[in-house]
Order: sequence, then structure tokens, then C-alpha cells
Amino acid sequence: MNDLLPLEAVSFDAEMGEMIIVDQTLLPNRVEFLRIRDQTEVWEAIHILRVRGAPAIGIAAGFGAYLAVRESRAEEYEQLLKEFLEAKRYLASARPTAVNLFWALDRMEKRLRSGRDKAIKAIKNDLLVEAEAIKAEDIAMCRAIGENGLSLLEPGMGLLTHCNAGRLAASRYGTALAPIYIGHEKNYGFKVFADETRPLLQGARLTALELMMAGVDVTLLCDSAAAMVMQKGWIQAVLAGCDRIAANGDVANKIGTSGVAILARHYGIPFYILGPTSSIDRQCPTGAQITIEERNPEEVTELWYAKRMAPAGVKVFNPAFDVTPHELIAGIVTERGVARAPFGDVFERMLMEWFVV
Amino acid sequence: MNDLLPLEAVSFDAEMGEMIIVDQTLLPNRVEFLRIRDQTEVWEAIHILRVRGAPAIGIAAGFGAYLAVRESRAEEYEQLLKEFLEAKRYLASARPTAVNLFWALDRMEKRLRSGRDKAIKAIKNDLLVEAEAIKAEDIAMCRAIGENGLSLLEPGMGLLTHCNAGRLAASRYGTALAPIYIGHEKNYGFKVFADETRPLLQGARLTALELMMAGVDVTLLCDSAAAMVMQKGWIQAVLAGCDRIAANGDVANKIGTSGVAILARHYGIPFYILGPTSSIDRQCPTGAQITIEERNPEEVTELWYAKRMAPAGVKVFNPAFDVTPHELIAGIVTERGVARAPFGDVFERMLMEWFVV
Repeated sequence: MNDLLPLEAVSFDAEMGEMIIVDQTLLPNRVEFLRIRDQTEVWEAIHILRVRGAPAIGIAAGFGAYLAVRESRAEEYEQLLKEFLEAKRYLASARPTAVNLFWALDRMEKRLRSGRDKAIKAIKNDLLVEAEAIKAEDIAMCRAIGENGLSLLEPGMGLLTHCNAGRLAASRYGTALAPIYIGHEKNYGFKVFADETRPLLQGARLTALELMMAGVDVTLLCDSAAAMVMQKGWIQAVLAGCDRIAANGDVANKIGTSGVAILARHYGIPFYILGPTSSIDRQCPTGAQITIEERNPEEVTELWYAKRMAPAGVKVFNPAFDVTPHELIAGIVTERGVARAPFGDVFERMLMEWFVV
Repeated sequence: MNDLLPLEAVSFDAEMGEMIIVDQTLLPNRVEFLRIRDQTEVWEAIHILRVRGAPAIGIAAGFGAYLAVRESRAEEYEQLLKEFLEAKRYLASARPTAVNLFWALDRMEKRLRSGRDKAIKAIKNDLLVEAEAIKAEDIAMCRAIGENGLSLLEPGMGLLTHCNAGRLAASRYGTALAPIYIGHEKNYGFKVFADETRPLLQGARLTALELMMAGVDVTLLCDSAAAMVMQKGWIQAVLAGCDRIAANGDVANKIGTSGVAILARHYGIPFYILGPTSSIDRQCPTGAQITIEERNPEEVTELWYAKRMAPAGVKVFNPAFDVTPHELIAGIVTERGVARAPFGDVFERMLMEWFVV
């Protein structure tokens, strides 16, 4: 499969004026790229999760906001702004819990407003430039996370990962998988083990696929086999992403992450969290303040299956995330460097403008 | 569902001369009892896993050996023995790796041979008595494991269990679930959490079902959520079964068991193994000498699913079992009592004939 295109979640064909996405609803059985031309298609792609992962959604929203007004017949700024704001409301409704969606749309609006004295054509071009900047910045950020993460690793290591914080969720390198891609460029010869990540199987469907297609040596396992691969001495580091990082370094991430961290501690294997500094929430003092969403029981009992695999009416506990206490985390790798305990102090410095790794 | 029959894996209707089994291939969607009258039906039931679990297979083989010669027209011992040995070979071929199958058939043969001077009718009756004894002894053993296990627990506790070592795998009380059933009889009000147990989902399909049908408060969770229920303080003890116990107390059991033991250690929760003393293999010094079967990758990538959930051709690590080191085990509960470290010495005493709890 190595000769296929890399699985870039969202890209833009400037010549054709089209956004290109991998249709993630078809993975892992079919790899199809969709060409998206208007805001209705953008809305649908975000709504039904053809595009998923916070950074990828932000990038799609940026290009989507451009596509929404590109064909506008507005001849003056106020009319264009009015049309843009309508499109923005519409696109924002595609996935009302996706913070990055609103962030990207706000950023696009700001760019539009900054051009109020420009010609309409120039304003439209600015929007495309801004969308491309959102993507370029994401690539640079993922690259920096990857380089910083790679500094913690050695060639030939066995690496365990949970869920999918890879290129299908972001751009080019992903976040948790970025050191793996950059190490692969440098012939590090990593052996990667991917937890399948029940209930939604992002590890099986997405991580295993994107690493295979990039030519990385990847082995899929059930979440319950993670302890055994560690016991066998096959794992030298664990790499996981993050949904939210509290001020003290506690991390909310996909359900199962905290268990993997405990296993890693037991076997003396360093457990690293990787993500952008934008995931650090200084308003949230500890993991205890993070509310964990409980999801539909059918994800456990029926989803994916040809027939129900649990008795009808059984009680189910199906949390989407768990909280890994900071004591179990050997380092939090961001685009600005690697934070180690005590995390609070490092975050304070890391989040200052002048911070240099 | 509480008014349904208890899910007794194998029983015998003496009046009709029929073995009755729960057809486990239909669980958890349909609970159907099959009436089995001849050796072909017995062979098929064991072969396609309508009956599964070592003790239950042994019990089915006992009744099966009786059913195989019940209608024999043999008029003398040698002819009956010849027919029995043919049936024995045939039944033993139903599942060539099931040690309990051979053990039960050998025991039935021994009983038959002990009656060589008896009338044919009396020998046949002896075989039924022997099969019933196999079952009665299993019930007594499960009951003893349950009572011994219950001595470690308090009313109202939250209990986590992995895989299925319940009544569907044995008789009446099961092994790992026996303290739960006996506690339920005594109104202990346990709150049970059942790991779904990927890849074969025995926790979802079997444990959740049999506990629900018995009226026990049970909640199903993905294996990856076990750490979170412990973190929340919902679990006061972990109960797991065993496939094989090494002389030093290391235990081979369903993949994922060792991970649960590590999580329990981290949270200071006692982790107990429950099983018959026949699981103790004194010829096997430590867990390192236990060979772990690796199973078909399709169990992870395709089984159960309506469509493939992992990329075609992905490498898979799919061990059937793992080994939990004895250091992580708070106690090994057998029908003869509770062994605690150092296990080797206790096993020596426990396995002596005169051992009394």
C-alpha cells in the first residue's frame, strides 16, 4: 500500500479551487478522496465525520469558509460580510461541540474584517491565504511536536499508541504519531503497536491504516493485550494524544489512556502525552474538574457488530475519556518543547510569548 | 429476565433420558435449551461450542458417553466395552485440545471396566450414576470455591470480573463468579462490573447475560474502562478465573487478566484468582514455562463485525492468554481454601489428601 498517496486528511487544490478530503466514513475498507466545492458539501463532510479530529476540522472549516463566499456576487464589503456571516453560522452548525470549528471560523471572519478597505477579489484571496495559513501552521506545529517527541526516542524502539492522533486527525504528521512519521523519514525503524481502542476502534480503523500506508511497521492488538506486549519487553515508550490538559498536567484523553499509563509505570516504560499547547487549559486546575462525557451504550453493545453482542437491556458504562494523573506522565510534548513535572510551572513559561525551547 | 430458568450449561433429564444444554452459540440474543439424545448430537454440541468451558465440557462428555451406549444391543461386557471405546474415540475427537473432555471420558471408561461382572443394564446405570457424579462433584467444587471466595468479600462491594468463568462454563455457580452467586443468595448486594473481554467478548455475551438472568446487578464496560471504574472507587475486589496455575502461583488466564491485575495493584484493590486445584500444575515451575497460544488475526479484525474494522493485511498480535505474575495476586481461591503467597508451599499442603481448610 506504500505507493498510495499519504492520507492527508484535508488539502486544497488551488488550481481547481477544490478542497480534497479523505472520506473517513469509508475507512479502513476503502480509501477515497472527495473533492469538495461548496459550503453544503463542507457542512455535510464535517457533520457526518468524513473529516474528524479537532485540527482537521479547523482546517476544513477554514477552506470551507473560503469556498462559501468564493462565488459570491457581492460587490461591496458589507454585502460580502453579510454572506460570510450567514455561511459561518451554517458551517458552525455542522458539529456544535467542535471547538476548533468555531476557532477557525472566527479567525476567518477576523481576516475578512481586516480587509474592509480592499477590493472584493482581494478579500476573497485573503480568505484563501488565511485558510492555507491555518493548515501551514498546523503542519508546522505537528512537525515541531514530532521533532520534540523524537528527541525522547531512539532508533529501533518499540512504541505503543492508543486511539488516533495521527495525520487523519490533523495534518501531515499528526500529534501523537508525529515522532513516528518523522522517525520514519529518518529511518529510525520503529516497531509500532496500535491498541484497537474500543469502543470506536480508532486504533484499528485509523492508526493502523495510516501507519501501514506510510510504510511504518505497525501491529494491531486488542486493548487488553497492551500489558502483554509490555511484559514481553517489546515496548520502550508509549505515545498518546490529549483532548485537554489541566494546569497541573492531568490529561483527559480517549478512554483507556490512563490504564495504559498505569501499565507503563508498572513496567518502567516512559509514558508521553503529545499535543499542542492550545490543549492546555490553565482555567482547569486539575483533572478532577474535567467532566467526562458518557456516550451511548449501543457503542459497546451493537455498533459495528452484525448482531448484538451483549444482552438486550444490559447496563453499560461507556465513558468517552478518562483522566491520566500527571504523576504517571513522563513528559508532555508540545510544539514548544517537552514539559516535565512539575507541569504547572513549565506550562506557565511555555505559554509565554517569548518561550524558546 | 429473572423469572427465566438459571442458565445451567449442562443438565440431565433422567425421566426423559436426555441431556439438556444451553445452546451457547445463540447467546446473548436467544436463550434456547437443546435436548440431546445421542452421541452425534453430543459430538456436534461440543465441536461447534454449543457447550464450552472446561468443566461444562467434562460434564457433557460424561452424559454423552452414557447416551452413546444406552441404546446398545450388546448382551455381554466385551461387546459393550468395544462399543464404548468406539464412542469414546468419536467423542474425544469433538475438541482435540479440551483436556477435561479426555479426563471425563477416561473416568467413564474406568467406571464401565469396574463393572465387568455386572449385568449390562447395571453397567449402563453405573455410567449414568458416574456422569451424575461428575456433575455433582463439579457443583460441590464450585460451591466450595464460592464459599471460600465469599469469605474475602463484604456486602455491598463493587466487584470487577474479566472473561467468563461462570455457570455457563461450569455448573451452577461457576468458579470466578461463584462468590457472586453465593453472595447474591445471601443478599450481599454486590455491584458487578464485567469487562467485555475482547476479542471474543465472553464478558459481554456470557458474563453479563448470566448475571443479569440471575438478578445480579451487573454493568458491562469495555476492557479499556477498567482503570476508570477503579479510579472512581467503584471496585473493592477483582475476581478472575484461571486456565493454568504454575507451581509458584503465576497464573495463565484470558488475555487482559494481567493488565487488570496491574491496575488493581495500582489502586490498592485485592486481585483474586479462583479455580479448582486441578488447575494447579506442579510440573510447571513458573509462568515463563507456559506457552501462550496465538490465535487467528481475524478474531481481532473481522469477527463479529458487519464489515472489516481494520485494514486488510494488517499485522495482528492476538494472544489467547496472558500470564499474571504471582506477586500481583492477593489470593488464589480453590475448593480447598485460599492460598496466599508463598503459593508454592501452600499448594503442596493444599494438594495433599488430608488437607483441610
